[in-house]
Amino acid sequence: MNAPEPAAALSRQTDRTLAEQLAARFAERIGQRLLPPGARLPSVRDCARRHAISTSTVVAAYDRLLALGLVEARAQRGFFVRDAAAGRDKAAAAGLARPPLPVSATMLIRGMFQQSGQRPMPALGTLPADWLDPALLATALRAVSRGPALAERALQYGEPAGEPRLRQALALKVAEYGVVATPQQIVTTLGATQALDVVTRSLLRAGDGVLVDEPGWAIEYARLAALGMRVLPVPRGADGPDLAVMERLIAAHAPRLYVTVSVLHNPTGASLSLHAAHRLLQLAQQHALHIVEDDTYAHLASPHLPRLAALDGLQRTVYLSGFSKILAPNWRVGYIAAPAALVDRLVDTKLLCSLTTPSVTELALAHCLEKGLLRRHVERVVQRLDAARSRSVKVAEHHGFGFAAAPRGLFGWVDTGCDSERLARAMLDAGWLIAPGALFHAAPRPTTLMRVNFATTQQPAFWHDLRRACTDISRH
Amino acid sequence: MNAPEPAAALSRQTDRTLAEQLAARFAERIGQRLLPPGARLPSVRDCARRHAISTSTVVAAYDRLLALGLVEARAQRGFFVRDAAAGRDKAAAAGLARPPLPVSATMLIRGMFQQSGQRPMPALGTLPADWLDPALLATALRAVSRGPALAERALQYGEPAGEPRLRQALALKVAEYGVVATPQQIVTTLGATQALDVVTRSLLRAGDGVLVDEPGWAIEYARLAALGMRVLPVPRGADGPDLAVMERLIAAHAPRLYVTVSVLHNPTGASLSLHAAHRLLQLAQQHALHIVEDDTYAHLASPHLPRLAALDGLQRTVYLSGFSKILAPNWRVGYIAAPAALVDRLVDTKLLCSLTTPSVTELALAHCLEKGLLRRHVERVVQRLDAARSRSVKVAEHHGFGFAAAPRGLFGWVDTGCDSERLARAMLDAGWLIAPGALFHAAPRPTTLMRVNFATTQQPAFWHDLRRACTDISRH
Repeated sequence: MNAPEPAAALSRQTDRTLAEQLAARFAERIGQRLLPPGARLPSVRDCARRHAISTSTVVAAYDRLLALGLVEARAQRGFFVRDAAAGRDKAAAAGLARPPLPVSATMLIRGMFQQSGQRPMPALGTLPADWLDPALLATALRAVSRGPALAERALQYGEPAGEPRLRQALALKVAEYGVVATPQQIVTTLGATQALDVVTRSLLRAGDGVLVDEPGWAIEYARLAALGMRVLPVPRGADGPDLAVMERLIAAHAPRLYVTVSVLHNPTGASLSLHAAHRLLQLAQQHALHIVEDDTYAHLASPHLPRLAALDGLQRTVYLSGFSKILAPNWRVGYIAAPAALVDRLVDTKLLCSLTTPSVTELALAHCLEKGLLRRHVERVVQRLDAARSRSVKVAEHHGFGFAAAPRGLFGWVDTGCDSERLARAMLDAGWLIAPGALFHAAPRPTTLMRVNFATTQQPAFWHDLRRACTDISRH
Repeated sequence: MNAPEPAAALSRQTDRTLAEQLAARFAERIGQRLLPPGARLPSVRDCARRHAISTSTVVAAYDRLLALGLVEARAQRGFFVRDAAAGRDKAAAAGLARPPLPVSATMLIRGMFQQSGQRPMPALGTLPADWLDPALLATALRAVSRGPALAERALQYGEPAGEPRLRQALALKVAEYGVVATPQQIVTTLGATQALDVVTRSLLRAGDGVLVDEPGWAIEYARLAALGMRVLPVPRGADGPDLAVMERLIAAHAPRLYVTVSVLHNPTGASLSLHAAHRLLQLAQQHALHIVEDDTYAHLASPHLPRLAALDGLQRTVYLSGFSKILAPNWRVGYIAAPAALVDRLVDTKLLCSLTTPSVTELALAHCLEKGLLRRHVERVVQRLDAARSRSVKVAEHHGFGFAAAPRGLFGWVDTGCDSERLARAMLDAGWLIAPGALFHAAPRPTTLMRVNFATTQQPAFWHDLRRACTDISRH
């Protein structure tokens, strides 16, 4: 269990002055992009009150940041984080297309990667590191590194479709979900993210329309938009996508692909009902639509929840998943199970993206699958997550927060009752990184919703601070 | 040294009939795409003559392939390889965009990945496996896997820009080429291929024009075209690109990027002269053009050859390279050294492509760099390559072949004097995979040129068979 972080308070016992400590803390957040360019620092008075220090200490800290060139003062308005990169080389950057990754999504994702381990992060997209099992990973790496075979493998590019031994193990794995695929239908990738990239680049060209769930994952919207695709959001309900909206979008835009998280959807936690899955496949058949089924959260869900790829026998559906949410985020092993007719095309695209993928992590994962190590680990994690979710929900409700979708899996979709973008800024200043609902909309708009990670929100302190921030916002 | 493959002859000593052996050999090549869909099998008579067997044996073998559904017979024309994927699921594949990877490039690259190790492959794009050092790789993997640190690292995604320890080592490495970059300007990637993908996706959008060298690498043309970019070829001469053509293309298409291999250019082996580099940078400055300098063959060249990124101090130039051509193709470690103003944008694109990259291979490479293991290995390889190149050139010239560019580095650009596409088909039947010149043109056209890998063309047998095939072609 993560303990609440005591280091959030400034200390009078170190050899650094309070102003130095405060300046260092802001500098760190600016460096991590938790305070992105353009963000306003709290007013001197607010900051002094919050840290129980004098306003002159805050002024001294802000002066230090000014001297470092990290912030700029704007008359009558306060202190703002400078865009250091733009300042450094505006001329070089001029005229170059900036990918349309929303600043707030960048902030969130950078924050996710900067996870310090010191304080639980409600915005985290994965299980916290201390829920995973380094001994299991070390064992697997040792097992495959023994002897000269692995080093000899590294002397050639390797199989374009991925390590045959892993593809064999994955064919057995997807069978657990009812997805029938031969090892020849499996293509390994650098995590589920590259799987999504390879599939969409194989099946679409710039300018094509693509249906996505809304709410959904901002990074996926950004990826599609950066490739020049037209993102067409379909409202995602408790049972599945809104098929009436989908039909209208099909009629208007003739999209060729629908990308969806069918099981434990991010951020709502909802899973496709059997009936909705059946109707969706009928619609896909009728309109020659392909479906990309992103099963990233597979291990945290019952294997018996219906998968589209199981229903349609991998005909119109391309199935993909990975192991970042359960085993080893940094191993970056993901995979695609595809209709036989599409495999060559996917392999060609993978070659264009990165040629092949490394054998060491693929063989280590194959070892985990073959020896049943993953299965035992999954059982432990799911049990722990169930307990954490129960507790989080209880504490949240105790503080008067409700859930916009029934709590399931890793994420909770919380209705905070106040604008969650403002809430995110206020919470950041109190040291909490949260994921405001706007990050899950294709066209960001004000919303009172936010996503929390149940593995990191069991502490009353978080919900207490959230309630206080909500109260502050509704007062001003 | 690779011995010529005796298995090329059919054997009367096995328990399989000659027809079975012949059919199996064709089936294998079809499976490996060395005989791609649509390719014609040799005529029954030619095949019989070549293998010194009866025509009825060949007919029996072809019948076997027919029965397996691998080939089809077309009246009066002979036997052709079937498009198995299209046959399997034409309906599913209908209407989906196929990336414009030329069939012959697919064939070549699949052949490269299927390298059997039994027979030297003149078309190979890397050093043969037996030129590399598995002991060095095993040592490095062991060194970084010792203790629990690596497994613990795998529990989080890791730094988006890549392992700090490797980026530190790479900053020192590029300094050897005169490229001045801080570790903060280095972004690691999954090989140089992902580096190219990340850079072009960051700086261009679909529809943008991009200047490339011609001749150049087909896979790179295919990658850019698949992203919807307009590929604008600039003739590459002995000293550098044709700047007059480049100026005309700039005036007509306003491209924003030029992608080039400045040192040991693929396929000609030519390197940019200091003067050409200087003029090129002036042109880039004048037209606000960015340059991507792909230094994939860095280790095989003198460190003193001029790098654009060194000349311009990483202002308009983005430098990238990798280790597939010298150390470990399957580790897939590449990197970008970029102007400071572009780093954030490149990291964002990397996140969209694959989130992060695996630490295990990046740390193992850092170990090789830090301990000087790579440097010693490079010295050995370069010496051996120099000897192999001398010998290859001598044997080639002895068989009457000349070089269209001064032989340098890994590749030779040979003028065969006859259509090299036809030559490639004829040589394939004799068991040699060669890389016809058409693969190096943005719009394939007939050419007598071909690329050879000096590490795999020292055997007189290859040049002898090549001469015979040329003679056959000019007779018919």
